[in-house]
Amino acid sequence: MSASTSVKVKPLGDRVLIKHIEEEEQVRGGIYIPDSAKEKPQEAEVIALGTGSKDAEGNAIGFNVKVGDRVLTSKYGGTEVKVDGQTYLLVREDDILGIIEA
Amino acid sequence: MSASTSVKVKPLGDRVLIKHIEEEEQVRGGIYIPDSAKEKPQEAEVIALGTGSKDAEGNAIGFNVKVGDRVLTSKYGGTEVKVDGQTYLLVREDDILGIIEA
Amino acid sequence: MSASTSVKVKPLGDRVLIKHIEEEEQVRGGIYIPDSAKEKPQEAEVIALGTGSKDAEGNAIGFNVKVGDRVLTSKYGGTEVKVDGQTYLLVREDDILGIIEA
Amino acid sequence: MSASTSVKVKPLGDRVLIKHIEEEEQVRGGIYIPDSAKEKPQEAEVIALGTGSKDAEGNAIGFNVKVGDRVLTSKYGGTEVKVDGQTYLLVREDDILGIIEA
Amino acid sequence: MSASTSVKVKPLGDRVLIKHIEEEEQVRGGIYIPDSAKEKPQEAEVIALGTGSKDAEGNAIGFNVKVGDRVLTSKYGGTEVKVDGQTYLLVREDDILGIIEA
Amino acid sequence: MSASTSVKVKPLGDRVLIKHIEEEEQVRGGIYIPDSAKEKPQEAEVIALGTGSKDAEGNAIGFNVKVGDRVLTSKYGGTEVKVDGQTYLLVREDDILGIIEA
Amino acid sequence: MSASTSVKVKPLGDRVLIKHIEEEEQVRGGIYIPDSAKEKPQEAEVIALGTGSKDAEGNAIGFNVKVGDRVLTSKYGGTEVKVDGQTYLLVREDDILGIIEA
Repeated sequence: MSASTSVKVKPLGDRVLIKHIEEEEQVRGGIYIPDSAKEKPQEAEVIALGTGSKDAEGNAIGFNVKVGDRVLTSKYGGTEVKVDGQTYLLVREDDILGIIEA
Repeated sequence: MSASTSVKVKPLGDRVLIKHIEEEEQVRGGIYIPDSAKEKPQEAEVIALGTGSKDAEGNAIGFNVKVGDRVLTSKYGGTEVKVDGQTYLLVREDDILGIIEA
Repeated sequence: MSASTSVKVKPLGDRVLIKHIEEEEQVRGGIYIPDSAKEKPQEAEVIALGTGSKDAEGNAIGFNVKVGDRVLTSKYGGTEVKVDGQTYLLVREDDILGIIEA
Repeated sequence: MSASTSVKVKPLGDRVLIKHIEEEEQVRGGIYIPDSAKEKPQEAEVIALGTGSKDAEGNAIGFNVKVGDRVLTSKYGGTEVKVDGQTYLLVREDDILGIIEA
Repeated sequence: MSASTSVKVKPLGDRVLIKHIEEEEQVRGGIYIPDSAKEKPQEAEVIALGTGSKDAEGNAIGFNVKVGDRVLTSKYGGTEVKVDGQTYLLVREDDILGIIEA
Repeated sequence: MSASTSVKVKPLGDRVLIKHIEEEEQVRGGIYIPDSAKEKPQEAEVIALGTGSKDAEGNAIGFNVKVGDRVLTSKYGGTEVKVDGQTYLLVREDDILGIIEA
Repeated sequence: MSASTSVKVKPLGDRVLIKHIEEEEQVRGGIYIPDSAKEKPQEAEVIALGTGSKDAEGNAIGFNVKVGDRVLTSKYGGTEVKVDGQTYLLVREDDILGIIEA
């Protein structure tokens, strides 16, 4: 059920396009978000990396995530976009908290 | 229905002149903005790039978008200008979220 | 009706002295400011450039505008000064949104 | 009672995955948090280091903590995640106040 | 009526000591401050330059104004000092808007 | 009555572990804090230095205080920790105002 | 009536230890603070310089004031300390407005 084939949005700069993973899928993935947490991170799949950014020296800064990674992001932040009937999120890479390793 | 021929505004610095695309056109382009989203990005066409900016070393920073690109921008931010009866927006490039690829 | 001959104010740093262009003149120039816009940019003529600023390396940063340019600026910001009975505005160059090309 | 074997979250950037240590364990470890303190630090174990960050020169910045360290962190800040039924915290390394030495 | 001979305050860093010019004198100088302006700049004479500041490379940053210059400053900001019965102002050079050229 | 032997907390980064000195001891040390002062600094002893921080070039930044120094710190700021029944404070070195010389 | 002999506080970083000069002494020094000023600077004597700070390149930044200088400082800011029955102030050098030259 990958969504990465028909997507047509290239994020700008250090932004990343991610797709939220439904809760029933998250349970199977082994990650549980506790009910009492004030800020609940959300599980998502990285769909597309941005055009990248540069450091003060002008050197390109690489991404720490890659397309297909399962990541945890803050519930707040980012901008929703709908492509071909599915909802995605544009977030800055720094708003990604961690990668869920298989 | 390109608007790029008669435009006479050269954006300054890292600003970009864009033209908002009407919703009926957006539907045909395949991008749907969900109704429930708090911050809805808007589809727009890049009409003119700015004079550019420089990094701390004094080297020119190029633009990641080019004239004619279809982009997603935040609904808020930027300044409206009307040229020859049509409304444009002056935005900083960092306020462009992503490029819609054909 | 140029005002640039008798002006006696040299802006400091990255500031620019501009003169607001009356609305009847703006119409002839082909730029219309839409009524509904929350922030309306204003058309102005560049009268004098500042003494300039320097980057972190100590190199002079040039201006992107030149004396005589017609520019769009935000309605807010800058400081009014009156010289020889005419009103001018001292603004930072970064507050100039774009240049209106002839 | 180490939790580091089955964890599957790789923190991003300068973030660190830590596990809060229960109060009965803290007492045995010799660290007492005073009741009257307005901001109580919490004892935790470092479970996983992030992918790292870089300085302005592009050189990798190492971590001052290592997996297995007992650390003191502020009670506020960080994001809770639950993995395999246990609760962890994703915090930036700068939010770790000190290392408890054995 | 120059006040620059007996002054005994050396401004620190990028500060400049200026003396406000009375309104009757300003009129003769040809600069009128419009009544309706929300922020009225004030005409002043530069009495003493500061000890100077340095850029990130450690090189001295020169002043754009010199002793004796007539300048426009914001009405707000700076600190009043009274020396030998006359009132002066200590302002940062960046708070000087422009130099009035003779 | 030195507390530095049994302490087991290594501060992280530019933090310093200090121990507040009781008022009766401060009087003997010759430093009096005036009653009327809004912000009263507190006398403390430096117990342990942090792991250190680095400048933009990646060079280690040394500490200006050393273990055993008597210092003045702001009453506010820092985090209390209790080790072996005694209360300590974790503060950033920049929050130390001065060293009391013997 | 110099206070510089018995002082035992070494300011940290870019801080300076100063001693406020009583108003009767200020009058003799020729500096009058106007009554109407909203922010009144205060005359003080520099008693001790800090341990110094460094620029981004790691080079030591010197002080612009020296021990014994009469300076003007803002009335607000700094921290009072009492040593041997006299009240001093710890201020950052940037909060010193100017040096009163003899």
